[in-house]
Amino acid sequence: MDETLILAEDRLLGPEPKQKDLALHLYRLIADLPLVCPHGHVDPRLFADPDYSFGSPVDLLLIPDHYIFRMLYSQGIALESLGIPRQDGGPVEQDHRKIWQLFAEHFYLFRGTPTGIWLNHAFYHVFGIRQKLNGGSAQAIYDQIAAKLASPEMTPRRLFEQFNIDVLCTTDPATDRLEHHQAIRQSGWKATIRPTFRPDTVVNLDTENWRDHIKQLSEVSGITVESYPTFIQALENRRAYFKTMGAAATDHAALIPCTERLSRAELEIIFDRALCCQATAHDAMRFTGHMLIEMARMSIEDGLVMQLHPGSFRNHNGLIFEGFGRDKGADMPISTEYTRNLKPLLDLYGSDPRLTLILFTLDETSYTRELAPLAGHYPALKLGPPWWFHDSFNGMQRYFDQVMETAGLYNTAGFNDDTRAFPSIPARHDVWRRASANWLAGLVLRGLIDLSDAEEMALDLANGLAKRAYKL
Amino acid sequence: MDETLILAEDRLLGPEPKQKDLALHLYRLIADLPLVCPHGHVDPRLFADPDYSFGSPVDLLLIPDHYIFRMLYSQGIALESLGIPRQDGGPVEQDHRKIWQLFAEHFYLFRGTPTGIWLNHAFYHVFGIRQKLNGGSAQAIYDQIAAKLASPEMTPRRLFEQFNIDVLCTTDPATDRLEHHQAIRQSGWKATIRPTFRPDTVVNLDTENWRDHIKQLSEVSGITVESYPTFIQALENRRAYFKTMGAAATDHAALIPCTERLSRAELEIIFDRALCCQATAHDAMRFTGHMLIEMARMSIEDGLVMQLHPGSFRNHNGLIFEGFGRDKGADMPISTEYTRNLKPLLDLYGSDPRLTLILFTLDETSYTRELAPLAGHYPALKLGPPWWFHDSFNGMQRYFDQVMETAGLYNTAGFNDDTRAFPSIPARHDVWRRASANWLAGLVLRGLIDLSDAEEMALDLANGLAKRAYKL
Amino acid sequence: MDETLILAEDRLLGPEPKQKDLALHLYRLIADLPLVCPHGHVDPRLFADPDYSFGSPVDLLLIPDHYIFRMLYSQGIALESLGIPRQDGGPVEQDHRKIWQLFAEHFYLFRGTPTGIWLNHAFYHVFGIRQKLNGGSAQAIYDQIAAKLASPEMTPRRLFEQFNIDVLCTTDPATDRLEHHQAIRQSGWKATIRPTFRPDTVVNLDTENWRDHIKQLSEVSGITVESYPTFIQALENRRAYFKTMGAAATDHAALIPCTERLSRAELEIIFDRALCCQATAHDAMRFTGHMLIEMARMSIEDGLVMQLHPGSFRNHNGLIFEGFGRDKGADMPISTEYTRNLKPLLDLYGSDPRLTLILFTLDETSYTRELAPLAGHYPALKLGPPWWFHDSFNGMQRYFDQVMETAGLYNTAGFNDDTRAFPSIPARHDVWRRASANWLAGLVLRGLIDLSDAEEMALDLANGLAKRAYKL
Repeated sequence: MDETLILAEDRLLGPEPKQKDLALHLYRLIADLPLVCPHGHVDPRLFADPDYSFGSPVDLLLIPDHYIFRMLYSQGIALESLGIPRQDGGPVEQDHRKIWQLFAEHFYLFRGTPTGIWLNHAFYHVFGIRQKLNGGSAQAIYDQIAAKLASPEMTPRRLFEQFNIDVLCTTDPATDRLEHHQAIRQSGWKATIRPTFRPDTVVNLDTENWRDHIKQLSEVSGITVESYPTFIQALENRRAYFKTMGAAATDHAALIPCTERLSRAELEIIFDRALCCQATAHDAMRFTGHMLIEMARMSIEDGLVMQLHPGSFRNHNGLIFEGFGRDKGADMPISTEYTRNLKPLLDLYGSDPRLTLILFTLDETSYTRELAPLAGHYPALKLGPPWWFHDSFNGMQRYFDQVMETAGLYNTAGFNDDTRAFPSIPARHDVWRRASANWLAGLVLRGLIDLSDAEEMALDLANGLAKRAYKL
Repeated sequence: MDETLILAEDRLLGPEPKQKDLALHLYRLIADLPLVCPHGHVDPRLFADPDYSFGSPVDLLLIPDHYIFRMLYSQGIALESLGIPRQDGGPVEQDHRKIWQLFAEHFYLFRGTPTGIWLNHAFYHVFGIRQKLNGGSAQAIYDQIAAKLASPEMTPRRLFEQFNIDVLCTTDPATDRLEHHQAIRQSGWKATIRPTFRPDTVVNLDTENWRDHIKQLSEVSGITVESYPTFIQALENRRAYFKTMGAAATDHAALIPCTERLSRAELEIIFDRALCCQATAHDAMRFTGHMLIEMARMSIEDGLVMQLHPGSFRNHNGLIFEGFGRDKGADMPISTEYTRNLKPLLDLYGSDPRLTLILFTLDETSYTRELAPLAGHYPALKLGPPWWFHDSFNGMQRYFDQVMETAGLYNTAGFNDDTRAFPSIPARHDVWRRASANWLAGLVLRGLIDLSDAEEMALDLANGLAKRAYKL
Repeated sequence: MDETLILAEDRLLGPEPKQKDLALHLYRLIADLPLVCPHGHVDPRLFADPDYSFGSPVDLLLIPDHYIFRMLYSQGIALESLGIPRQDGGPVEQDHRKIWQLFAEHFYLFRGTPTGIWLNHAFYHVFGIRQKLNGGSAQAIYDQIAAKLASPEMTPRRLFEQFNIDVLCTTDPATDRLEHHQAIRQSGWKATIRPTFRPDTVVNLDTENWRDHIKQLSEVSGITVESYPTFIQALENRRAYFKTMGAAATDHAALIPCTERLSRAELEIIFDRALCCQATAHDAMRFTGHMLIEMARMSIEDGLVMQLHPGSFRNHNGLIFEGFGRDKGADMPISTEYTRNLKPLLDLYGSDPRLTLILFTLDETSYTRELAPLAGHYPALKLGPPWWFHDSFNGMQRYFDQVMETAGLYNTAGFNDDTRAFPSIPARHDVWRRASANWLAGLVLRGLIDLSDAEEMALDLANGLAKRAYKL
């Protein structure tokens, strides 16, 4: 029943021998370069306490990772039986060995998926596992991971160093006091961990309990938000604070990336309606569209790089949202338009060299049709790497094949792992570096670039583009 | 002029030698497994009469196959000259040798198309042809096929056995009495041929002559459909009858796959308007959307698997529709949205383990953006194979590359041939099995899965997934 | 710093040795066939004067080519510093050596882009350059190109002959008197250069200064356009004139390719409103939709092939449009629908064998979903080659893989270079011929077609399909 887990050195590379040799050459140049992580969702708390413990293998690997449990759920496995906490505090499985057994018996579901690749990479390289995970090997592997987790080198800080992370950016609400970031700084630990300013909960009027977030914003900024002008002041205050704490960037979600400049009068009316809980869905959409423009304006002033992640229909499954809350693997992409939606913002700031706006998409149809042409023209625009469902080997191949010819490599922003699963970070960068090497080897063999071009491009893809795009 | 028709054993497999060896190994494991055909449009009449004759080569291969004559039509060949019957009974070519000659002279149009592959496969394996079809070889090949068709092993039942078909599902209107299915059963022939419940003509209020279909529904069900409640009763009655006749599934078309729960009051008003021929297009769209939800509810109760085939703009060419009627190669895909459209249905039933809803698409942009994420989350959802225009070698490659990483193999439903061209069934499954082997070989060679995984996955792709998804 | 520029004979072909051998065999069959150029934007003035001089390397290669300067602009290089003339006549860089240096220092931006391939091809084959262009080699290469441009074989006419161009079609406004075409004819030079009738500025009511264009139309046609009927007469007059001047085709742009038959009364009202500068945006859209149908009607009567290039959002960057005008690399694609939009036109004329309507797209999602199914049915439809951003090696691979299975090769229109950059013409055709050979070699090796099929298809792809589709 138990089989060996093998990670071949040449994995993910195309099979044609000449191409593989060349790809391996390029991969080896970049395989061990420091990891630059400009966007992600690792909890800064992990690093605030030098002795932070990851808990059990299930605490570390399963419960925080919706990539994993969505797949198990899709095959009829209840989230309760995986130990995912219910909103109402109702009973969920507490026996982590039982949860691990269930997971192991269904690990075949991840065959050929990015999650399968990341997990096997972490098993192999982080925990020294050499068996394939299945029902038969489940408990032995649990033991091995649990033992490893008990060892002193298995704190987040030691792993951070072992992973060779150059810089890690977290994502933090605009209302966050960044206490964990402060604790990291004060501890004297020399790693570079930066916050990212994410104002969605105060900027999107249709956020649940929006007024509570505004209240928090008032508290943390010391500016009583009671009108549109004070709202703007409070946001500027928070951006300034995030900058002092090392922030390099902001991040923005929007269901639809529409942008629209509203008049001061309209803004005040809409904002007042929102304060009275009377804003309509249409108000909310327009206000978000205006605030994207306003955030671009602030970025020009304070130099923070702006990221836009649109097109995710959050909490699609009503049942799961009610039972378990947000970020439970039930966010679904929708078709997303950029050419018309971004025009108002781009007309104002798209040609301003002080702005860097990094665009992401869950709608790959926009790669050749909209995003690559836009990024291949506007000085302010760069394209982020394949996002979420598209952060996979095939997704990267499509990205390279569909984006690069028109946008040009140098209008892209390198890789970011965008993960809350800390132990998967090296695996994710490794897939990107292999995909990059493989793509470049193909260009060389087809005579599109020469080897010296490819070597430079490989270094840039590995971390140079990310460093420059995010000004790190 | 005549050249040899060669079907290489390794056809369709990628050319890199290591990959091809591996793909051949996997293909050979599954090449001869029984065919499971859970969805298609073969006429059950073929099997009701043990001595059913296919007629001439043109009767068998050309006249029923809109994949073929649409291509000839596109090059300016009138459907009349191909013997396609006119609605008005007007004159069409009767000389089948002349039609065959015309077809043969234009057979080069099918170079590199799936229709070309299927036809050459049937020529070679079903009829023993060893010459390429063209103007020069036309009559000799006609003779050869005609002679073969006259032989006793060339009845549909003998071919069904020769093709090694495990189970074949037909598609039948809700108003069908399933007399051919009854005849098959009563004849004592031991093949498994199952009907599929397709209620489009009664459920879509904008069907031409909808009231005639309702009248028929009343007649076959014995329930006078005079209101929404009696309509629902009649449908439940028919589903029960289809189940007793072996049905495993239902099938639904909708231009747009919107779903919406209507109130009882709205339903009664719309249904009454429809009975008075006063339903609007908007009524029809909402009613269809409601009925999809209602059909999911019935599936949960009676266990029939639900299939949804949306996004085909039927009878796009007004001239052809008037002259020749439906299914004449003039249905055209449109852009199709699933994430928002299916939410009402999924909120109600998407997490119910008793429902299996198999989704199809003619809009490949939904693979990575909507369908794979949805199927990778909702327990009730599975994805059907590449449909219609996408049932091709390239279409399958895109499907594997775009669906599997996110949905996972086990949220897909294997293959179905979806054909009315009975002799093309083995060819279609063969293309799928080759494409599957080729895809899996690529995964093994790139180190994503190992050989034992690949072998299991190959068996599932060949027929295991289809059997399980359709509960066959 | 200086490296050698190498153009391998097997460039762009897939690396698997058997496939490459076969692809090279096919490529060699077609590499030197005459170039057929049925659609493009080369200025006919180049050929009117036998001694026309291209000017400096910057005049020839940079200033007219928005493919190049959009990429430089995207990296923050001002158009002024590239010598692009301002609308207001304001100062721009005049030192062409300095511009060339700036370009050369940023030539790495074009790594892996089609523009990079075309430029290197022209450097190598037209100018005999053997060094890679960069900051170090910039001035030496400038010298070499300038010297070459000073030589007598470097007139447009000599290059036309050297490029082995069989026929070149230009694109000319409906109001053009075709004086340069007349001059070419009168000069006795034996090349075939044909105009193409492009009526956008008079047919699209929302054209800037539409009434001025109408005035010009009256002048050149001798028909006072003062109503819808006189407008139609004037257009028919111009089409007839273009035909006498050798035109084979018309060409039409539309943001959205909607078509709609308007009543005579509506047409007259809308046209009159337009004459009074009171037409609305909605009027303009409907009128364009009607005129597409009207143009199809005229094509049926006069035999001119009709081309439709929809989906380009022109002049997206307001700043650039104001400063530098049209065609400055700031046109952006939008999502484009064909199935529903073209139905009114196709119902009227789609089955008419006298019409050839060649469709283009900037929205590749329409390949498998709409364009291939439509072209695989309607006799009047053909699909043009990958357009603009998609005129690249990857774009061609996607086109072959996504269009051909459903449309069939013979419903496509071969290649057109669509360029205003005259020296890039051989490079563009060369990429297409290599991509064609590569695609066909793949089909042969996978057993989809045999070698004799592939050889015929290669010849057709190289120029046969274009000749036949455009009736050249």
